[in-house]
Amino acid sequence: MPGNSFGHAFRFTTWGESHGPQIGCVVDGVPPKIELSEEDLQYWLDRRRPGRSRYTTQRQEADLVKIVSGVFEGYTTGTPIGLIICNEDQRSRDYSEIKNKLRPAHADYTYRAKYGIRDYRGGGRASARETAMRVAAGAVARKILGEKIKIRGALVQIGDQPVKRGSWDWDEVEKNPFWCPDADVALDWAETLTTIRKKGLSLGAMIEVVASGVPAGWGEPVYDKLDGDLAKGFMTINAVKAVEIGAGLDVVRMTGKENADEMRAGSRDKPKFLSNNAGGILGGISTGQEIVARFAVKPTSSILEPVQTVDVDGAETEISTKGRHDPCVGIRAVPVGEAMMACVLADHFLRHRGQIGR
Amino acid sequence: MPGNSFGHAFRFTTWGESHGPQIGCVVDGVPPKIELSEEDLQYWLDRRRPGRSRYTTQRQEADLVKIVSGVFEGYTTGTPIGLIICNEDQRSRDYSEIKNKLRPAHADYTYRAKYGIRDYRGGGRASARETAMRVAAGAVARKILGEKIKIRGALVQIGDQPVKRGSWDWDEVEKNPFWCPDADVALDWAETLTTIRKKGLSLGAMIEVVASGVPAGWGEPVYDKLDGDLAKGFMTINAVKAVEIGAGLDVVRMTGKENADEMRAGSRDKPKFLSNNAGGILGGISTGQEIVARFAVKPTSSILEPVQTVDVDGAETEISTKGRHDPCVGIRAVPVGEAMMACVLADHFLRHRGQIGR
Amino acid sequence: MPGNSFGHAFRFTTWGESHGPQIGCVVDGVPPKIELSEEDLQYWLDRRRPGRSRYTTQRQEADLVKIVSGVFEGYTTGTPIGLIICNEDQRSRDYSEIKNKLRPAHADYTYRAKYGIRDYRGGGRASARETAMRVAAGAVARKILGEKIKIRGALVQIGDQPVKRGSWDWDEVEKNPFWCPDADVALDWAETLTTIRKKGLSLGAMIEVVASGVPAGWGEPVYDKLDGDLAKGFMTINAVKAVEIGAGLDVVRMTGKENADEMRAGSRDKPKFLSNNAGGILGGISTGQEIVARFAVKPTSSILEPVQTVDVDGAETEISTKGRHDPCVGIRAVPVGEAMMACVLADHFLRHRGQIGR
Amino acid sequence: MPGNSFGHAFRFTTWGESHGPQIGCVVDGVPPKIELSEEDLQYWLDRRRPGRSRYTTQRQEADLVKIVSGVFEGYTTGTPIGLIICNEDQRSRDYSEIKNKLRPAHADYTYRAKYGIRDYRGGGRASARETAMRVAAGAVARKILGEKIKIRGALVQIGDQPVKRGSWDWDEVEKNPFWCPDADVALDWAETLTTIRKKGLSLGAMIEVVASGVPAGWGEPVYDKLDGDLAKGFMTINAVKAVEIGAGLDVVRMTGKENADEMRAGSRDKPKFLSNNAGGILGGISTGQEIVARFAVKPTSSILEPVQTVDVDGAETEISTKGRHDPCVGIRAVPVGEAMMACVLADHFLRHRGQIGR
Repeated sequence: MPGNSFGHAFRFTTWGESHGPQIGCVVDGVPPKIELSEEDLQYWLDRRRPGRSRYTTQRQEADLVKIVSGVFEGYTTGTPIGLIICNEDQRSRDYSEIKNKLRPAHADYTYRAKYGIRDYRGGGRASARETAMRVAAGAVARKILGEKIKIRGALVQIGDQPVKRGSWDWDEVEKNPFWCPDADVALDWAETLTTIRKKGLSLGAMIEVVASGVPAGWGEPVYDKLDGDLAKGFMTINAVKAVEIGAGLDVVRMTGKENADEMRAGSRDKPKFLSNNAGGILGGISTGQEIVARFAVKPTSSILEPVQTVDVDGAETEISTKGRHDPCVGIRAVPVGEAMMACVLADHFLRHRGQIGR
Repeated sequence: MPGNSFGHAFRFTTWGESHGPQIGCVVDGVPPKIELSEEDLQYWLDRRRPGRSRYTTQRQEADLVKIVSGVFEGYTTGTPIGLIICNEDQRSRDYSEIKNKLRPAHADYTYRAKYGIRDYRGGGRASARETAMRVAAGAVARKILGEKIKIRGALVQIGDQPVKRGSWDWDEVEKNPFWCPDADVALDWAETLTTIRKKGLSLGAMIEVVASGVPAGWGEPVYDKLDGDLAKGFMTINAVKAVEIGAGLDVVRMTGKENADEMRAGSRDKPKFLSNNAGGILGGISTGQEIVARFAVKPTSSILEPVQTVDVDGAETEISTKGRHDPCVGIRAVPVGEAMMACVLADHFLRHRGQIGR
Repeated sequence: MPGNSFGHAFRFTTWGESHGPQIGCVVDGVPPKIELSEEDLQYWLDRRRPGRSRYTTQRQEADLVKIVSGVFEGYTTGTPIGLIICNEDQRSRDYSEIKNKLRPAHADYTYRAKYGIRDYRGGGRASARETAMRVAAGAVARKILGEKIKIRGALVQIGDQPVKRGSWDWDEVEKNPFWCPDADVALDWAETLTTIRKKGLSLGAMIEVVASGVPAGWGEPVYDKLDGDLAKGFMTINAVKAVEIGAGLDVVRMTGKENADEMRAGSRDKPKFLSNNAGGILGGISTGQEIVARFAVKPTSSILEPVQTVDVDGAETEISTKGRHDPCVGIRAVPVGEAMMACVLADHFLRHRGQIGR
Repeated sequence: MPGNSFGHAFRFTTWGESHGPQIGCVVDGVPPKIELSEEDLQYWLDRRRPGRSRYTTQRQEADLVKIVSGVFEGYTTGTPIGLIICNEDQRSRDYSEIKNKLRPAHADYTYRAKYGIRDYRGGGRASARETAMRVAAGAVARKILGEKIKIRGALVQIGDQPVKRGSWDWDEVEKNPFWCPDADVALDWAETLTTIRKKGLSLGAMIEVVASGVPAGWGEPVYDKLDGDLAKGFMTINAVKAVEIGAGLDVVRMTGKENADEMRAGSRDKPKFLSNNAGGILGGISTGQEIVARFAVKPTSSILEPVQTVDVDGAETEISTKGRHDPCVGIRAVPVGEAMMACVLADHFLRHRGQIGR
């Protein structure tokens, strides 16, 4: 019942605060005899790592992950995999401002209201630093899913600048600092974010995550539907305020005829769908099409521009965040979103296999 | 790990198919000595009941709920509450068409792909009939939450016709067949749906659910955040394809300054927020403001207008649904959304009280 | 977190009180396409049914189980199986004595202390009547396990009269009213219980449950070990006060040499064990030998002989139970113990298959 | 569903192998604002530490525990508490024998049968080294329970030498290397174990754990009964083969009159019980009396005396364990048993408080 675990058959539990000695994760339920190394995990962590470009926080952390259990002679043993990242960048610093002021749009007030105590250093447990462990768990999940299942994420909108669907190029995603699939829009974003940062502001973003190669049949109706678990997985990422599956909000404007993903004869046991408004999920179960999900990330809350707030005594004050912060926190959410997709799928793969036997 | 339960401290499990002898629910974890009668539950079930207007299915079911355990001499005993609704309207009927044809945008294909067998009568387990038990569980949850917490839902958009925020009137919600808070738009919807039904089509809808009176502090970071559980709760309702919290998708276009719900001095331990883009949740924990969530419901998939599909042998065919169906299934989703909000809040109330002691 | 569910991958939830309108169970996680009928369940329920001999309670209940969901055209569909038994023998009766007096060795005082309210009729939720639903769930579990796995229980001791291990005959178990594998001891028990009943007393009993055909490898270390779950499963049966696995308490007196189940060359991947002190479980995982467990059931608490107690106001009184009750409640615990063994094994089979894939 | 977590509201998850770099634990659900230091934990760990006397293994490990999250400025924050112990004594060693031979009464064969791979160094995950983390979690649990609840364990039998109940002295427990409450028997045990060790053998033991100060009302019927969870908690400790509550196995020989813990008038809402055969639990709920439980630990399986076995290829061989091992592994199980009692009680305290509100 405490809330620091995710998943059921594939289940991970994280701990650690932004400025504590280390953050960690234990991944339980991993099938045995899967080849797994620290390099396998580090590859994905490096994609999330801060300081990759001037559009993300300049906090410099190598974020080197160590495997401390559950792997023997290069292979998983079926026992829990312990993962540790030491927090390197804990330089002594003046926390007096955030110690006493409650930052708007952060969890300062709510942690205090709930627990009556909070580790204010860098946001403590509420820091997005926790998402490093989601990425590590996601890397393990990818290993379970195997090569046939491909999970890719992209940033599809910053502010009011969406990518053009017609210009989508997955290769482009790796070539710009935004995970943007549209080379032209990436240039626009660069300009926009440079301006926004100069103004001491920030912008929101939309991320899309696509999983291909998922067989039909995964998902546990009616309360652990595949889309239900994806919604939970994405919504629990820091700063996320909306989740869409397939056509998402657009279904409101559609007729039943437009929305129906009509079917034509396909291969054995697998019809050909004429569209994918369902985002690859019907009745909470995968259809065998691509799983398509999106989530909206709010603009970075720590900004240079002063905002009005109160302090821990309830007195009025204002706060302005100097120093390293992301003009668009959504950029670094892309690898995190991919990881949550991987974790949800790995969990449902194992759950499905338990009940159905394949 | 099977998927037919929802919640943790307040936990309900449902069973039953659309055309089986009965559907049921067991609600576990309910505090003792709460006054509870079948009438308390029936009130909310009647709001969801089909056949209330010509805009919802004409299936005529009294949907009379029976309490078969867990209540003694009018009060909950702390033991599991068994709830039963007998399916009355199981008239003998010709199922041959849906037995052999896989209806697009329904779960026919996916249940078959997953389980290799399906109860095709009326959608079986995948039928929205299951949501009656969500409403019953939600009625129990409301009792746990007490009078101070008020949960209200409204339909805020059908097709491309949204309500006007300036015209919002909660009293209006009870006066039209759409749970619409805007009297003028309700008239437009009536016209629109009449046209749509005549065409043999259907439309999607957006529902908003608001909970007021929720104290600050509920929610379990970082994986059982209040918004994470709401997202899961809403996304698992039949036909839902998107969930928003507070400003939802609009955060993408906002700057950090616009999005910040700035704070001014309020009462003791409770600042005054100048806006509620967060939808009453920060860091996964309630702020004490109104909890505001929305979800998008796709258009009814069973329509008169023929759609292309395949049969169980993979051969091409088409299907057209005659008889009773909703032109906008979103209407009946309003009480269901309220119920899921109530269930999530009751669960988090009890979980919070366990750890924190108040 | 509420306590009315058992198991994880194979999970059942029960509800209902001794004298409510019905008791029920929902069994979730059952693999699809298993042939299952009410007769399959009734066979096992009949073995537990009261009134089978003069050594068990004379409460006359047909205990007819109905399947109300999850089975379609004779096969499981993979959706939750709802089971209902209507309580027939609810004749109007005078409950004033047990309404006001707290029966020693019953749960009257503790339910009251916990919940502040209790359904006093026939023990309410604490009644052994609940175990009928364990037997029904166990019957479903047996179907999942298949014919190769055989689960049999026997009564191995009443009072100070144990069975002789050398005289063990499984066929004999079906021939006497005690599930006794030793024909001679069964005669002794008959005499003993006749005397005990005449005295208005009761006796305790020991039950042994053996599962053969379980493959090596089931069980989830380190907290969901197979023996850990068996211990929980048996200890939660009404009136159970001790659980043993394999040599059980006798291990205290053994040396490491005596206790070691030494191994000799066997078939491929399967050594031959020279003994089975481990009861078929090492490190919480099945060895492929017979799983052997025992549990001790206390003497029936409701006896004719008066016992001292207090009433709900704390005043001293005494209580004597007239009417139908078992001189040895352990007899009817045999089918219940078998059922819990089946449920634990089915759960671990599915969990193992999820992680390992076979 | 994976098995490396224990508890629900108070929930801990452990990881790590005997000879890996570290073992760890994350304790989730801990109430905030409880004073907690590494010294608080170390006190209990030191009691379990190997090498305290010549009757326990001579493995020399300081077992220094580090708190790496969840505690801020000396107080718990309500977020997950990460605990780490580095394995110091990993000296390079020849593992070739246990790499290839399957040790009888150990989990070598079963881990191999389940996972197809095993970390053979020192027993890997199946090593009793894991219990250090149970003790650490138990220390946190004691903090939650507070000073009023006292949990004490004692060794009550080695081989065929039980303590005399009339000579029980809790103070004595701290004065001998056996946690023995009977000074005379402690001398006998010293002699017995010296002899046993010289013979290259080992003996089993019985541990009793008593919790006083537990209020009436804790426990979640019917499947998460307090005794059910204790049975699971104890049975999952390495080498445990039996669990008793209160009179335990002796109930088999009792009449209902003897077994009934008769009640007389006591203080308000709290009767006086004339005996405690129930071990402080009725219907799975605490009675307010002392909680009394016992568990049987088998003799150390690693002995000098050779035992017959097979190797990983199935060929016959024998094995003899040289070097440091315990002549009676039950001695070090005493602090572990206390810890599991504490964890079960803390979990049920929080669960009870969630539902009942006090």
